[in-house]
Amino acid sequence: MIPYAQRSREELQEELNRVQDALEQAKKRNLKLDMSRGKPGKEQLALSMDMLTDLVTVEDCFDGAADARNYGMLNGLPSARAFFADLLDIRPEQVFVGGNASLQLMYDLIAKAYTHGLKHSPVPWSKRGTVRFLCPAPGYDRHFRISQSFGMEMIPVAMTETGPDMDAVEQWVKDPSVLGMWCCPKYSNPDGIVYSEETICRIAALRPAAPDFTILWDNAYCVHELEGEYVPFPEILSLAAHAGNPDMVFEFASTSKITFPGAGISCMASSPQNIDYLTKLIGVQIISFDKLNQLRHVRFLKDKAHTLKLMKRHAAILKPHFDAVLDALKREIAPLEIATWTQPKGGYFISLYAMHGTAKRTLALAKEAGVTMTEAGATYPYGQDPFDSNIRIAPSVPPLDELRQAVEILCLCLRYTALEQLLKNPV
Amino acid sequence: MIPYAQRSREELQEELNRVQDALEQAKKRNLKLDMSRGKPGKEQLALSMDMLTDLVTVEDCFDGAADARNYGMLNGLPSARAFFADLLDIRPEQVFVGGNASLQLMYDLIAKAYTHGLKHSPVPWSKRGTVRFLCPAPGYDRHFRISQSFGMEMIPVAMTETGPDMDAVEQWVKDPSVLGMWCCPKYSNPDGIVYSEETICRIAALRPAAPDFTILWDNAYCVHELEGEYVPFPEILSLAAHAGNPDMVFEFASTSKITFPGAGISCMASSPQNIDYLTKLIGVQIISFDKLNQLRHVRFLKDKAHTLKLMKRHAAILKPHFDAVLDALKREIAPLEIATWTQPKGGYFISLYAMHGTAKRTLALAKEAGVTMTEAGATYPYGQDPFDSNIRIAPSVPPLDELRQAVEILCLCLRYTALEQLLKNPV
Repeated sequence: MIPYAQRSREELQEELNRVQDALEQAKKRNLKLDMSRGKPGKEQLALSMDMLTDLVTVEDCFDGAADARNYGMLNGLPSARAFFADLLDIRPEQVFVGGNASLQLMYDLIAKAYTHGLKHSPVPWSKRGTVRFLCPAPGYDRHFRISQSFGMEMIPVAMTETGPDMDAVEQWVKDPSVLGMWCCPKYSNPDGIVYSEETICRIAALRPAAPDFTILWDNAYCVHELEGEYVPFPEILSLAAHAGNPDMVFEFASTSKITFPGAGISCMASSPQNIDYLTKLIGVQIISFDKLNQLRHVRFLKDKAHTLKLMKRHAAILKPHFDAVLDALKREIAPLEIATWTQPKGGYFISLYAMHGTAKRTLALAKEAGVTMTEAGATYPYGQDPFDSNIRIAPSVPPLDELRQAVEILCLCLRYTALEQLLKNPV
Repeated sequence: MIPYAQRSREELQEELNRVQDALEQAKKRNLKLDMSRGKPGKEQLALSMDMLTDLVTVEDCFDGAADARNYGMLNGLPSARAFFADLLDIRPEQVFVGGNASLQLMYDLIAKAYTHGLKHSPVPWSKRGTVRFLCPAPGYDRHFRISQSFGMEMIPVAMTETGPDMDAVEQWVKDPSVLGMWCCPKYSNPDGIVYSEETICRIAALRPAAPDFTILWDNAYCVHELEGEYVPFPEILSLAAHAGNPDMVFEFASTSKITFPGAGISCMASSPQNIDYLTKLIGVQIISFDKLNQLRHVRFLKDKAHTLKLMKRHAAILKPHFDAVLDALKREIAPLEIATWTQPKGGYFISLYAMHGTAKRTLALAKEAGVTMTEAGATYPYGQDPFDSNIRIAPSVPPLDELRQAVEILCLCLRYTALEQLLKNPV
């Protein structure tokens, strides 16, 4: 196969006709395939079914002296705090265990910053005029939606192979209206980038102008390797504390992609002082989160070592899904030189960069042919990809045979829009 | 027994000595009894243990075509929406099903009013200058804490035997800075008052000056009769809609006192338009609440009729607890004419009115003798009971023998402070 850019106008037109025919054939299959969200598939959900029956008797419902069925223990069941502490290499007193969604804890942290202020806020963020927030991009669409919902001005920061462009970050934090930054530091959404130790140390040692500058460290994929052994990861909270920033970072994690996405448990971790401060505010909002589900998880997952064994079973299911996509891209797209993509070692996404100006159109065509993907642009602040290039592929949910069909269609759409583009704007 | 007010100074002093001796004896027992929070006791928690095992197989986890384990269905599992609709005599599209805490839904409604505004808000409440809120008092301390946390100016409204003083409410809502009202309409916390139909109709037909005036209708005890049959209750949402206020009321309920306080499910109900508006805002905060727990509840509770059967079993356990308190008060306190109290037909509290100026001191003495009760004043805005009189008794948790000891001590403390008061300020 000859790269498209090296083909003549006539060859491109012929190829366009071939791809168009193939797409028309595909549409007739009336497919309904979804590669839009990074969520575990059915085989993965089956791995945690035993958890549903690990609390049966009254005695089962006790965590030491604590009755997990009743009110109380706002910051979480002691054993659940210890579990997340083990998972994240921190201390239990740094952990607040929440409900089934770490997103809720992130949102509530921002919401409380706006209405009440954080520990070091001179005034609540709602009284601060413009609030700017650093958004390494591409990134997680739901982070950006929180910022947008509160009317923040989002500052895109370029992602590099070692994490956010730290020169830019160090420059931006000198602005006292820059109040925070979103980070997905291990197997970043969508690029699967693992922040380097240097990047992490530079983040920990930032000297922001705003006294309440806050990093939301969404460690969503902390134990989510796709193959091989668990990759140890620098512990940001102690690094920040050593660098003189004990209260600058809030870390988040959950079991959404360990047990059940809709019925897991989540945590927020920071300095004990920050956790105390937030616990007082959260105590007005809720008496306690669901401790029975916390206990269910502790009994089932036990500790980090045992959780890592479960994660290997997830990886064994996930890896073929990633390979199916990567194989197809390598076979169908690589020789044409019309796109590049990531080869993640963990997380839930393959991040593809199509020819500039073609991502939206590619996904619209895919949708017509029955393949739903994350909306183009979603991985950028305000949903605006400056190059209209990034496509987030979530291969976990469709069964392998469906996945192969979906990627086949995606490849056709990528070829189609690249050909259109080249015919419009010859190289 | 002669009423204290009719006794001579010498007789009062002798009685004080006797009570003091009895209290000293009681202290030596080193008791640790808790009548502070309205939460189910162990016998009650045992009633719902079967719920823990009603989801076992993969098939069990499906609600029709919906897999309750995974993400999605933000406003709740269809069957859970239908369950709460049945419970509250409304339609499923009026229902948003949340997590384990209706308090969280109430707090989040207020928080979103502040940061984003409600459906009819000209601007968010954070931009409104003084926000006033009507607080029928005595009322639920956690309602008042939410208002206080957001810096509202709380306006106490007197409770009558038929609900809040509606003449006062109708007058207050003419003030455009009055943006809402807390209501606990059936078996009110702490007085156990059931709002009359006339009161409810007047609330539904209010003509508030603020376009986004909002009633938080906390129907926490909607099926929580202490004896006899379920008492039907006017349905506020349709009444308000008929009176031209379709979006004025948000109703809340939960299973905290039906199944497990810490691991139940909750709901918020309003007009479909309000639910749509809030669902969009909540969609930024969370992908979905715990639907496995929603399904667990639906399978166990089935529907309103079946839930009412369970509530009769709760009542059979609770009634003797209430009777133990009421019997002791009738025997020990009534003849002395130093306090009055409610005889609730549902809910979780007995509300006692001690001699003015003695509630704080009474509870401090009780605490010294090992009996913890809800802090005096907690049932009023800002924790300030204008008469220092109201004491909220929560008889559900202590086993009956402990409860009898606790009430015995409370009675001694009531006598002690009444005697002190009479000796200081003779009638």
